[in-house]
Amino acid sequence: MHIIEAKGTPNGRRVRVFLAEKGIEVPAVNIDLRAGENLGAEYRAKNPFGRVPTLELDDGTCIAESVAICRYFDLLKPEPSLFGSDARTAAVIEMWNRRAELNVLMPGAQAFRNLTGFFKDRERISAEWGEISEAATAEAIGLFDAHLANHAFLAGDTFSIADITFGVSLDFFQALKLKLPFELPHLSRYRADLASRPSWAAR
Amino acid sequence: MHIIEAKGTPNGRRVRVFLAEKGIEVPAVNIDLRAGENLGAEYRAKNPFGRVPTLELDDGTCIAESVAICRYFDLLKPEPSLFGSDARTAAVIEMWNRRAELNVLMPGAQAFRNLTGFFKDRERISAEWGEISEAATAEAIGLFDAHLANHAFLAGDTFSIADITFGVSLDFFQALKLKLPFELPHLSRYRADLASRPSWAAR
Repeated sequence: MHIIEAKGTPNGRRVRVFLAEKGIEVPAVNIDLRAGENLGAEYRAKNPFGRVPTLELDDGTCIAESVAICRYFDLLKPEPSLFGSDARTAAVIEMWNRRAELNVLMPGAQAFRNLTGFFKDRERISAEWGEISEAATAEAIGLFDAHLANHAFLAGDTFSIADITFGVSLDFFQALKLKLPFELPHLSRYRADLASRPSWAAR
Repeated sequence: MHIIEAKGTPNGRRVRVFLAEKGIEVPAVNIDLRAGENLGAEYRAKNPFGRVPTLELDDGTCIAESVAICRYFDLLKPEPSLFGSDARTAAVIEMWNRRAELNVLMPGAQAFRNLTGFFKDRERISAEWGEISEAATAEAIGLFDAHLANHAFLAGDTFSIADITFGVSLDFFQALKLKLPFELPHLSRYRADLASRPSWAAR
């Protein structure tokens, strides 16, 4: 079993932080996104959509999508619980994980790709959409900050996969220097809490 | 307990088809998206992100995001299994559900909103991005068709939540007359199979 990944991507880091929280070690096989290795025939046979990371099991099954990979390991090793163990908690965690993905990670990634043209050799871009996406991401981060005024973590008192998605996204976008409100008061307290976790060093 | 929803939206229908497969009935409270009811203070107190549907539990807990709502009911009533019951199956289903969301539902929705300006009274749009998104959605549908050449359903032999996401998205985009390849051979066989399920009539 191994994970095919590309260092420096937020989705790769989401899986690595998750595994560090669980105390699970899985070997990595690195590929080069910039050189388009994820779009070659060999990788597409494992993941036709060309995204990383992909978990390849010993029987040859390939599991792509970072949350699907995390779910696989969560079901094999349920503790510590990062997806929630009862229906209400699991649903609240899934809600916040999706809010982080759909309102922050996705539009922030679209802002980056469309504003910088980082992948313009392989995709059409729109600078106009990059600006719209950056503004939408900034607005959403304000809603998260308001929520964090009254909650230690996104889903309540306990760290969950939703915090991995949100915190890793913020770290990534800050390194890329997107124009987003990284210094909001509750957000800053929360991000310091995340950074103090041993798992947060995982890359 | 009730679901606050807006008739005609794909995310609302995803939950309704899921509940029909499970044989669960939940009362609906309808709101008017076109009139912006989802952006008013009353609804924002339940879901600050203004999206629909939202499940409101008897204790006042509000669970937004359609997949989080489905997960809640799945954990209360595991059979028939639509999320998968072992780690490998659950991960493969989650992978395909996310592929359907991220490569079809999301870009297709962005194509619709940006090409038509349906919500231009409340969001900035880019016609250029609408065109890029429509082309990306069409390309992804081709990858799904190739997969369906060798698989009855997205995750293999068994119907799952991934099929709800993908099939409901296609129905929605076809009704909107997006320029997408709805008539591909394997896709047509698959969509006829979905349409023959009693749950598919749910709205």
